Amino acid sequence: MVFLPSATSATSAADVGLKRSHVDYSRYLSAEARSRLPNPIKSIWKAAQVKPGTINMGNGDPHHTLYPISEVNFVVPSIDEHDPVQSWRSGTGEQNIISSYKDELCALSLRTAFAYGAGAGLKDVRDALADLNDRIHSPPNHTVSLSLGNADALTKCFRLLGDPGDSFLCEEFTFSAMTNAALPLGIEWVPIRMDNNGLVPSDLERILSSWDEAKQGKRPHVLYTIPCSQNPTGSTLSLERRQQIYQIAHDWDIIILEDDPYFFLQYDLGMSQSTIQQYGHTRAMAEVLPRSFLSMDYDGRVMRLDSFSKIVAPGMRLGWVTSNSYFADKLDMLTDSSSQHPHGMGQAFVAELLGSNGWGVDGFMKWILSLCNEYQRRRDLFMDVFRQKVATSGFASAEVPQSGMFVWIKSGPTTNTADLMDELFRKLLNNGLVMMPASTFAIADRTGTMGSHINDRVNFFRATFVGTDETIRNGLATFGRTLEEFFL
Amino acid sequence: MVFLPSATSATSAADVGLKRSHVDYSRYLSAEARSRLPNPIKSIWKAAQVKPGTINMGNGDPHHTLYPISEVNFVVPSIDEHDPVQSWRSGTGEQNIISSYKDELCALSLRTAFAYGAGAGLKDVRDALADLNDRIHSPPNHTVSLSLGNADALTKCFRLLGDPGDSFLCEEFTFSAMTNAALPLGIEWVPIRMDNNGLVPSDLERILSSWDEAKQGKRPHVLYTIPCSQNPTGSTLSLERRQQIYQIAHDWDIIILEDDPYFFLQYDLGMSQSTIQQYGHTRAMAEVLPRSFLSMDYDGRVMRLDSFSKIVAPGMRLGWVTSNSYFADKLDMLTDSSSQHPHGMGQAFVAELLGSNGWGVDGFMKWILSLCNEYQRRRDLFMDVFRQKVATSGFASAEVPQSGMFVWIKSGPTTNTADLMDELFRKLLNNGLVMMPASTFAIADRTGTMGSHINDRVNFFRATFVGTDETIRNGLATFGRTLEEFFL
Repeated sequence: MVFLPSATSATSAADVGLKRSHVDYSRYLSAEARSRLPNPIKSIWKAAQVKPGTINMGNGDPHHTLYPISEVNFVVPSIDEHDPVQSWRSGTGEQNIISSYKDELCALSLRTAFAYGAGAGLKDVRDALADLNDRIHSPPNHTVSLSLGNADALTKCFRLLGDPGDSFLCEEFTFSAMTNAALPLGIEWVPIRMDNNGLVPSDLERILSSWDEAKQGKRPHVLYTIPCSQNPTGSTLSLERRQQIYQIAHDWDIIILEDDPYFFLQYDLGMSQSTIQQYGHTRAMAEVLPRSFLSMDYDGRVMRLDSFSKIVAPGMRLGWVTSNSYFADKLDMLTDSSSQHPHGMGQAFVAELLGSNGWGVDGFMKWILSLCNEYQRRRDLFMDVFRQKVATSGFASAEVPQSGMFVWIKSGPTTNTADLMDELFRKLLNNGLVMMPASTFAIADRTGTMGSHINDRVNFFRATFVGTDETIRNGLATFGRTLEEFFL
Repeated sequence: MVFLPSATSATSAADVGLKRSHVDYSRYLSAEARSRLPNPIKSIWKAAQVKPGTINMGNGDPHHTLYPISEVNFVVPSIDEHDPVQSWRSGTGEQNIISSYKDELCALSLRTAFAYGAGAGLKDVRDALADLNDRIHSPPNHTVSLSLGNADALTKCFRLLGDPGDSFLCEEFTFSAMTNAALPLGIEWVPIRMDNNGLVPSDLERILSSWDEAKQGKRPHVLYTIPCSQNPTGSTLSLERRQQIYQIAHDWDIIILEDDPYFFLQYDLGMSQSTIQQYGHTRAMAEVLPRSFLSMDYDGRVMRLDSFSKIVAPGMRLGWVTSNSYFADKLDMLTDSSSQHPHGMGQAFVAELLGSNGWGVDGFMKWILSLCNEYQRRRDLFMDVFRQKVATSGFASAEVPQSGMFVWIKSGPTTNTADLMDELFRKLLNNGLVMMPASTFAIADRTGTMGSHINDRVNFFRATFVGTDETIRNGLATFGRTLEEFFL
């Protein structure tokens, strides 16, 4: 059961069920987060709401009669189709119109959506997402706050938890746009070794147990990880590794930033048709989706980041963060002091889509399952073409990803790797193909404890399989041809 | 003419026309902003775009055929009505539907709006706002970047320009939600005295010329000001004061953060009907709106913040920042490293509204003029009721605001002011009325040079006149009655 406190509520109630030894969450905070004050104007208005019927002459809020939008209609696929994604792509399926109104009944009135709102998002939207969270992760006693997508959420978490001079842990290849965002805050990254199955727990343990605060500064208290379709390697952590990692985080008192935008895009799921028929898509999905760190988080040390970017559209710029209520409160205060609150149009859309006039949570899960089938088809096409056009030459190989959007293609030499890969990247570009070179994602080890330098391990490309069939066929043909030109 | 560079362009071209002595904008930046790296993935993709027809297997972007939205319709007032706001409020006017499509022609395709986009916003939207800017401010050679509203824009400017230990200048009563947001960054606020007409230029000069870096630390290099309907005092700076302030900023090399959400809500405008008929609403408005700091900014020292919150709706969470292209570029890098880019739905709406199938820029100005008339009516009603129900007692007085949403009501004692005003605030609350006490907005002077303490000048309330007629009548009746109970 997820507990959704009002913005004012203290941590006490929400902490019931979380381990007592960890309720002092303030010690994880950055100096910036610790010194942040609540918005004085919101505080006053909170006091004022105590009495019903109070007249508000305090705020500069335009009256809803002056909003120049009375209705927003969204044309979406009907979720009653057997395979809604296929029907939608082929244009053969039914469409539905879901509507938000200013002056008529709907899931979330535009009067509310277009007014100033709460930093954590509007209650209806948070409740719908908490419901979805509950059914998928059954997280012990956590709070949902909306974000503007995972980049917004993650960079806010960095500001919440990181002081200049702090070291944070991450996978040795990771989404560098985000790790770079932490550098100007004075946060150093400590890379953890990976293998074909992702982050290696024993290496995490090695780094922490051999950490020398006298030489290396404060021991890391944050792990940033992408557990599903790890970006860029495409690997998905096994349950065993997740449990080991959570245990290590518990032992060394580490906050886990679980950045999971690809979580819902899983393949070869082996869904139970009878569970779907009996209990619906959400329960059937919950049975087969990987177990999140959030789902095992009895310490309240996980901040889980979910996003609509991959399952609706990136331009939505909406997602949600699930964490203990203390962190949620601090995150909301940062939002009050920055982006203020999530945009009303996106919240209106989500409220209607997940509401009773839209798809509902279960319909949304049906769409996602259908999306998984389509992406699985593309992944399979990619791997088939890869075998025919690329692997035959012996110059490249790849594991089959079980989730997400990426294939991590091993190719090229293991000596003078960085230079030769750079040359190969340019040759591909010259032949009209962009794949992301591993060097873009490599985190250099400044502790010097890792043995071989990461530059010797950058013999990989990140390729996506979510483009059109034509992109897959033509792109991989170019790739295979270029490898032969390059290596022969 | 506004110059809209691509995200990659260097500062050189855009700086032509700005004074040469000020082109080294890097020295204004915070250490954080200076050390920020460009997004490595975007850099690679930029390189890739050089060659037309390049196949992109680099990015994890969902294909547009999988966005589950094919069309968004917005029902808006027809701008052909004589007085569109009155027709809209009374429900007698025509409505228009403006639409964004994924697969049909429109101002901004949903394929673009729902994809990953640029931190500064999409070109169509930036161009439309640059056009509006041009026609209103004719700014010398500036760049437009979208924001998520002025809270987002302003707090990003704080991070861009402020280091721990820096002092920034602001009005002695100001929008404390924003000044508070700067405190955890280690920025100290230095208040400037105000009178009935707003910020007093001679006091700004006094503070700067008497600044002792040995005692007070680095001289302030940033002024945060709200020139129209200053929040909370409702005052609007005269042209003469603006010119004096700009000159002082020039002399002391100060960046002006021009936070102007109420700019378009001006009253007693004395619009020229013949200009409207001959040249349209935009030119007629441009003739009578106050001259912005931006319009006089030949140094490139103004970052102007505009918002849709007051002229469309707060929940839009969209606005725009206009600045020299160097700052624009740094701002975009911060956006890349935080909120990523503005939401697609809002951008789609703005593109259609300001496009040829919507109101267009001139239609938007017609709406704003109509809005001004309605707010002027409310202001006049407020002042009438105020005279009858409040001023007659002699316990309160107020100037007539010429813009925005607020009346700054002087009331109460000038000795033991803070305590008595707090008591009065509670009494009002008890009687069912919220007005914002001046203490909420007061910036204490830490330099000790200001003479009397601000706590002796907090004998004011900020009241809004933008509520319904009923709110105005009942609220002011309660206010008048409470004052009599309190003071008699």
